[in-house]
Amino acid sequence: MSNRRKFIQHSMTAIGATLASTSLAKAASSITERKSKIEVKQQDIILFQGDSITDHGRDRKITSPNNLQAMGNGYAMLAAGTILNQFAEKNLKIYNRGISGNKIPQLEERWQSDCIDLKPTILSILIGVNDYWHKKNGDYKGSVKTYKDNYNRLLDTTLNKLPNVKLIIGEPFAVKDVQYVDNSWFPEFSSYQSAARDLAKEYAAVFIPYQDVFDRAESRANGAYWTTDGVHTTMAGANLMAEAWLNTIK
Amino acid sequence: MSNRRKFIQHSMTAIGATLASTSLAKAASSITERKSKIEVKQQDIILFQGDSITDHGRDRKITSPNNLQAMGNGYAMLAAGTILNQFAEKNLKIYNRGISGNKIPQLEERWQSDCIDLKPTILSILIGVNDYWHKKNGDYKGSVKTYKDNYNRLLDTTLNKLPNVKLIIGEPFAVKDVQYVDNSWFPEFSSYQSAARDLAKEYAAVFIPYQDVFDRAESRANGAYWTTDGVHTTMAGANLMAEAWLNTIK
Repeated sequence: MSNRRKFIQHSMTAIGATLASTSLAKAASSITERKSKIEVKQQDIILFQGDSITDHGRDRKITSPNNLQAMGNGYAMLAAGTILNQFAEKNLKIYNRGISGNKIPQLEERWQSDCIDLKPTILSILIGVNDYWHKKNGDYKGSVKTYKDNYNRLLDTTLNKLPNVKLIIGEPFAVKDVQYVDNSWFPEFSSYQSAARDLAKEYAAVFIPYQDVFDRAESRANGAYWTTDGVHTTMAGANLMAEAWLNTIK
Repeated sequence: MSNRRKFIQHSMTAIGATLASTSLAKAASSITERKSKIEVKQQDIILFQGDSITDHGRDRKITSPNNLQAMGNGYAMLAAGTILNQFAEKNLKIYNRGISGNKIPQLEERWQSDCIDLKPTILSILIGVNDYWHKKNGDYKGSVKTYKDNYNRLLDTTLNKLPNVKLIIGEPFAVKDVQYVDNSWFPEFSSYQSAARDLAKEYAAVFIPYQDVFDRAESRANGAYWTTDGVHTTMAGANLMAEAWLNTIK
């Protein structure tokens, strides 16, 4: 169990107690802060991690931060550009290390070089659609239990090595009745979404309910307006995601 | 002289008169509207025109609207994505037809197919940096008079064929002390900026003072943060431009 998980559990106990020391009160307020917006601070290093939705055609040969080609064409680039404009005086570094086709196991394999070594202070992860989809297609044996257990382990590793990192966990999403996504995805896919939500709670991460974001957007335009194939975003869909992402910071 | 120029001149006379008919009062209010924000309406067709700053690596083979690759990676794509998200229910069509290296004469040559035929209802033009720069480099003979006269003719043609189009004219800009841009650009380049501003006034276009936008941004981060070479935008710079562009619509 990571320090933060222990810390959080201790703190929650403390909140329940009638006598809370000053440091525990501070801890409690820290937890509240994690659940509300994340404040962007001077020198912050922001890392976007995930699969193709995050990757979105980025040039993987470019490893430097704040580079347009290295950020791809999806929500990560849109959010990054807005942050770099809005917080221009904060000397931020922003990276995208999403890789198309990734599931939790691939993140684990490359976590040291593609996360820990970059020393992010704000870490945004969106992973899970392939963990379900590849299993459905018969290309992968992992279950929702594998997803949750391994995601758990990944977050433990992260917090052990980067104890002060602020976490943002995105809900994997699928837009029904667009190309690849139909009723057969549910309810099994929903269990992956619940797992991501539970982990966000457990690790006091900010959670982005992307499924809800896309569901609500369908009252304004149909699913194909927001995603090209049920999973990947159009220009409007990437903007919708970036908007939700930007709502997690201040 | 285009109908709108005549119309505007008549209207301005009418505003000065003590007795204004209802239709002229309406005309006056129409002029005021053009000088304030442009309302995005159902079925609007929005066209971004210009040079490399607008083009920004777009896939020119894709001619369909609302396509990510066809919108490039610059301010036009960022503004388009935001509009498509924000006004999802309006069934908009958005095109980018900026072409790298273009000056006013190249816009004129391709105006029928790359503007008139698309029937834009909102037309955004950003042109002029090459009209100055190529002259400075000895690759082009046109002067600021050529720029203004030909821009005038282009706008006349546009309004004759698309009398109801709403115009947005961007100020050509250059960020000093970044790569290509130094003191030698001024004051001559400023005369191109004044010409664009004068034309915006003459044609009741919304004017975007990009030079001022970039100048003010330098209080937050240096010029190289916003442009790669003094002329083309970084991720932050493109976001800055998109923000200014989006401020022209409602």
